[in-house]
Amino acid sequence: MTAKQNPLVVGLDITGTFIFAIEGALAGIQANLDLLGVLVLGFSTALVGGIIRDVLIGAVPPNALRDWRYTTLAISGGALTFICYHLVVEVPRIALLSLDAAGLAIFAVAGTEKSLDLGISPLIATMMGTITAVGGGMVRDVLLAHIPSVLRTDIYATAALFGSIILVLLRKLGVRPKPAAFFGFLGCFSLRMVAIHLHWHLPSMPPVLG
Amino acid sequence: MTAKQNPLVVGLDITGTFIFAIEGALAGIQANLDLLGVLVLGFSTALVGGIIRDVLIGAVPPNALRDWRYTTLAISGGALTFICYHLVVEVPRIALLSLDAAGLAIFAVAGTEKSLDLGISPLIATMMGTITAVGGGMVRDVLLAHIPSVLRTDIYATAALFGSIILVLLRKLGVRPKPAAFFGFLGCFSLRMVAIHLHWHLPSMPPVLG
Amino acid sequence: MTAKQNPLVVGLDITGTFIFAIEGALAGIQANLDLLGVLVLGFSTALVGGIIRDVLIGAVPPNALRDWRYTTLAISGGALTFICYHLVVEVPRIALLSLDAAGLAIFAVAGTEKSLDLGISPLIATMMGTITAVGGGMVRDVLLAHIPSVLRTDIYATAALFGSIILVLLRKLGVRPKPAAFFGFLGCFSLRMVAIHLHWHLPSMPPVLG
Repeated sequence: MTAKQNPLVVGLDITGTFIFAIEGALAGIQANLDLLGVLVLGFSTALVGGIIRDVLIGAVPPNALRDWRYTTLAISGGALTFICYHLVVEVPRIALLSLDAAGLAIFAVAGTEKSLDLGISPLIATMMGTITAVGGGMVRDVLLAHIPSVLRTDIYATAALFGSIILVLLRKLGVRPKPAAFFGFLGCFSLRMVAIHLHWHLPSMPPVLG
Repeated sequence: MTAKQNPLVVGLDITGTFIFAIEGALAGIQANLDLLGVLVLGFSTALVGGIIRDVLIGAVPPNALRDWRYTTLAISGGALTFICYHLVVEVPRIALLSLDAAGLAIFAVAGTEKSLDLGISPLIATMMGTITAVGGGMVRDVLLAHIPSVLRTDIYATAALFGSIILVLLRKLGVRPKPAAFFGFLGCFSLRMVAIHLHWHLPSMPPVLG
Repeated sequence: MTAKQNPLVVGLDITGTFIFAIEGALAGIQANLDLLGVLVLGFSTALVGGIIRDVLIGAVPPNALRDWRYTTLAISGGALTFICYHLVVEVPRIALLSLDAAGLAIFAVAGTEKSLDLGISPLIATMMGTITAVGGGMVRDVLLAHIPSVLRTDIYATAALFGSIILVLLRKLGVRPKPAAFFGFLGCFSLRMVAIHLHWHLPSMPPVLG
């Protein structure tokens, strides 16, 4: 059921978990949730993407639940954000967006890598990477009774998918896991940051045809 | 884990997937989502019902993710709808409702059939058929931050349940899979169409008692 | 896959299921859903917490779906509430809150107990107990397009967690299952009732720091 943990996946997962827990907690505070709600939103944003991935690929109980460090980390990130809220909100918006892009890229790469490790086909591995990266944020938005922002704003899930595809293609070409993961990360992170700076959007007005 | 695919299930699933992807994409366009959001809504409406079923009956990774044709089909249906939106909206409402009823009946039958194939008990198989048929649409509505329409409009999930029960009863009586699936389809489709034409509703005002 | 059912878990589960089905159905009626919607909300509130737990710990098909008694019970509870709505709404608010606290405590204990039975680690077992207790209500609120009330109101999930922790600690100290479950129940129920009477809340305004 559970492959021996790849240390690359573990290291990436831990960093991404902390970043996303902070973001989820921020969203919870801004929606006036109480402490528990804030912690649940931090936990969901950080870990539910990976939990969905693990349930879909049959790796249950999901790693985020089996390994107490993930839970502890997500809850610490949320609690820290709650306590230091007035400091966190003074962080410039571009720094938060950059951290978020890093978390996105990390989770896309870690989710793809884990799926490949378990023998999942490359096409599905890229989808699993994307779900790992954006699933937690979608659940956070659903819990806040919003349309998930990933469904209507610029290049976000697209960047995660792009990074996952780079990783898979490089692995197919015989590149070793660490450099492949690095370029996957770089691809996702760069596309996301460029899209933010240049205000790139996916089309949303359907073209008239015929 | 994964039974050899029943060709009847595969054929039905493919048709239903395409119909539901179009519908989901339409809902996404009408909610002003961008291209990715439209594709995700098409994918969710078409495939998430079956994915939930597969997770619940332990057939992971779900077939919709393991077989690249489903993903390709759902995404093509969504993309086509996006590109040809101005044509699709001119399709008369009754044609869309009929297609939707056909998709509903197909998924109810395919979901029930697959559960029976995996040795699930008949009672649960009818529930799995119903979830397959309406689960994708419910997730679509949740993503759009709506109360799922299936919970408050007329005879919809009821028709799916009805078709599933017909299939299970006929199989119990010794009818062979293909005719049983046909009559299950017919039962669901007919009930849904009659309910639309006659404006049948389930009761929603609670009767006064005592 | 499926451990022999612990009779303690079964007895508790059945009582909690009925209480939560009534509550879910009430929420459905108040949101003007039709009969099917009311039954689905009763079913979801009563059984989805346990289904999520079973999917996460790999006990699929979930017990709530494998054992027809749970489905029958949840649907009967919902139907009864629909038929007797005018009687149910005359029940004093404090009686409903007490019943709800009892259901919460029962599900927290039953979910923790089942996870321990399956060899899940104690830390995760307490989370599974809490999810069992509050997961159904969260899904109910999401289906009604609300922010789950558990995320922003007083001591609710906290009470479930508290009861689960008591049970786990007592088991660690060598207490036998029945008394451990009893004290877990008592801890959750008492904390919830005291919190209601004294209007205890978790903090929601972040303290200024530094």
